[in-house]
Amino acid sequence: MTGHQLVLATRNRKKLAELRRILEPVVGLDVLGLDDLPPFDEAPESGATFAENALAKARDAAEATGLAAVADDSGLTVDALNGMPGVLSARWAGRHGNDLANLELLLAQIVDVPDERRGAAFVCTAGLVLPGGAEHVLEAEMRGRIIRRPRGSGGFGYDPIFIADGHAMTTAEMTPEDKDAISHRGKAFRALLPLLDADLG
Amino acid sequence: MTGHQLVLATRNRKKLAELRRILEPVVGLDVLGLDDLPPFDEAPESGATFAENALAKARDAAEATGLAAVADDSGLTVDALNGMPGVLSARWAGRHGNDLANLELLLAQIVDVPDERRGAAFVCTAGLVLPGGAEHVLEAEMRGRIIRRPRGSGGFGYDPIFIADGHAMTTAEMTPEDKDAISHRGKAFRALLPLLDADLG
Repeated sequence: MTGHQLVLATRNRKKLAELRRILEPVVGLDVLGLDDLPPFDEAPESGATFAENALAKARDAAEATGLAAVADDSGLTVDALNGMPGVLSARWAGRHGNDLANLELLLAQIVDVPDERRGAAFVCTAGLVLPGGAEHVLEAEMRGRIIRRPRGSGGFGYDPIFIADGHAMTTAEMTPEDKDAISHRGKAFRALLPLLDADLG
Repeated sequence: MTGHQLVLATRNRKKLAELRRILEPVVGLDVLGLDDLPPFDEAPESGATFAENALAKARDAAEATGLAAVADDSGLTVDALNGMPGVLSARWAGRHGNDLANLELLLAQIVDVPDERRGAAFVCTAGLVLPGGAEHVLEAEMRGRIIRRPRGSGGFGYDPIFIADGHAMTTAEMTPEDKDAISHRGKAFRALLPLLDADLG
């Protein structure tokens, strides 16, 4: 497959860079972010699940552009918060929050939670909508735990306070390649690659 | 039963006033708050459930004073937050938060959640520990929904943004007596009254 365009329905530049890295193996795929396209109406992320949000974003982008579109909705599910912040991960400290405010709020909320109850998982749901209307949803997770102080400057979001099971570094301390190899987003989007290869051709 | 002392294991003055109101029918009961007693070591509220926290607080107070002790752990469980803030209700905006900061954070987090998914419940777990060591736990809830802007100046905590099912006013707009009649705390503590009458005698 060569010369095909795929829209990644995100305005998050760090997420876009991660997704481009992961999708590189699809030879000849031209990956566009929303900022590379004329503006269109985007529905708010008001779904109750990652899958609803991911599909809604991919559908909006596919309809507006006529191109194949991929979106992810991803987030951190913290056991001691009953799986929250979940779909609200990017807005945990409020609409005008940012990565640091979100992360500091989460640390403050679970400051009294002992080590044995600090389990968490990063979850990624990837939604793919093809020009013909076919839809695919894939979900993957990376289990781990929340530490007490941020470490590392790589990645984004909650990476500085998350250590994956079987690892010693936070995902913000890992190289991008090492993170992609184990990450929720790496796993979900690698599972999409065969669909892109087959259906975009 | 006359002349018996009961410790209410709380430092929250508004909660203390509510509990005193509800316990008034127990004739001759002398109700003390923690601020009426010499200081003692209080464990942090680190339990995963309301019941763990309520019993821990009541046990600490009963052991330190030799008196019967009642504690409540209560909070708001919001459907769109998977039941959170729950046991973290009083510290939702962080350790140094306050009622207003907690309430505003919660409104901001669910700002995109549509009306039909704004269900919530106030939950109260009352723990009673008697001098002989007997323990009782009672739980009650008040179902309702979260509105979009605070209304009313009564009550405390999340009262200004909560409307109970079948009502039109927030619990912060109701009279104390009307609130007690339907509230989680009113129901749980009224269920304790017979135990106090019987066991403290």
